[in-house]
Amino acid sequence: MADLEMIKRKVGKEASQFVESGMTIGLGFGSTAYWLIQALGERVKNGEIFYGVPTSNQTAEWAKEVGIHLTDFAHVTTLDVAIDGADEVDENFQLIKGGGGALLREKIVASAAKEFIVIVDYTKIVQKLGAFPLPIEIIPFGYERTQKQIADLGLHPALRKEEEVYLTDNGNYILDCDGGVIENPSELSHTLHNIPGVVESGLFIDMAAKVIVGKEDSIEILDVKK
Amino acid sequence: MADLEMIKRKVGKEASQFVESGMTIGLGFGSTAYWLIQALGERVKNGEIFYGVPTSNQTAEWAKEVGIHLTDFAHVTTLDVAIDGADEVDENFQLIKGGGGALLREKIVASAAKEFIVIVDYTKIVQKLGAFPLPIEIIPFGYERTQKQIADLGLHPALRKEEEVYLTDNGNYILDCDGGVIENPSELSHTLHNIPGVVESGLFIDMAAKVIVGKEDSIEILDVKK
Repeated sequence: MADLEMIKRKVGKEASQFVESGMTIGLGFGSTAYWLIQALGERVKNGEIFYGVPTSNQTAEWAKEVGIHLTDFAHVTTLDVAIDGADEVDENFQLIKGGGGALLREKIVASAAKEFIVIVDYTKIVQKLGAFPLPIEIIPFGYERTQKQIADLGLHPALRKEEEVYLTDNGNYILDCDGGVIENPSELSHTLHNIPGVVESGLFIDMAAKVIVGKEDSIEILDVKK
Repeated sequence: MADLEMIKRKVGKEASQFVESGMTIGLGFGSTAYWLIQALGERVKNGEIFYGVPTSNQTAEWAKEVGIHLTDFAHVTTLDVAIDGADEVDENFQLIKGGGGALLREKIVASAAKEFIVIVDYTKIVQKLGAFPLPIEIIPFGYERTQKQIADLGLHPALRKEEEVYLTDNGNYILDCDGGVIENPSELSHTLHNIPGVVESGLFIDMAAKVIVGKEDSIEILDVKK
């Protein structure tokens, strides 16, 4: 795994080239985002200025430590760029995100950016989504009913639990759905949105503008054709 | 307004004919639902049994007082019938609901029912929706961004406030949208669902199975053709 960590470090560094001094950046969570933030921190030492909207408290900590100015949607409603990891990226650049439980904040931040850049190592690239369980954020009220509706779609939803039921930052529950290959992510996303009680799914459809993939010996930058 | 109260009472009573002893009922909120519950209470005195899933704490109180057994989605995932009011009903039986702030619970309950019956007085019937401000429940995180996206649709969203910002039972905010006539409620509903941060809108699309309308001298029962 030391090798994978080195790849993530390179990908984080590579992503930093798309950030210019003065920009407001949506900052994702995860080990690759950590290395992006470290790379930006080096440039802060040289006098560059960055403003960050973090998707998690941990990200906020990392950003503060290296001198990135934290801001939020009370002060900006459009971000220059957002950079975040993904749990899976398919051949059409559709994503599963939210394994860490912050899918809604991550989606709000990604959707607020002029350009959303996905940073992953090669293990996250798949032909079709679905090997990674799809997280779905749902309202606690009536969650048994919501879970049933999702089960009826064949998605095998399991309520995420630690010692207690897992609560998102928004006070909601997460269903992890292990329903196998997702043949049509866009259609599934629509179907899920129409279920009352579903706040958001981990399907990020037509959102990625670039995917930076770290491989064993190289880094590939994929531009998504719009 | 005494006349209108009398009409609501008749509508509540009329709706009760669609409830049979032993049924599990989604119970809405509002003055017409109050009269439905009173009508069911009379039948409890005669030995009939009803199980209710309430959409609000006030509804739960009313139901308990008249001897309706309260239950919830931990015990049932399908309701025999749900009966609730609406803020507006258009000529295609699409609805605006949620003026009272419970739109999400109301939608979960309505969607869980085999048959959803809407009970209104004639003042709620409109040709096109939109005179009543459309409520939209949104996540507090990044709400300024979500509000901007909704404003960009021309919906004039205003954050609902009492002394403080209004919080739903789910801990979310409400935007009241005074954007005028809604030409295509179904399309708008889809558009809103696709905005990250939107939990649910007050548009109830293709959900009503019957609409019971109280008029000055009569009651009309409209069966929605599927």
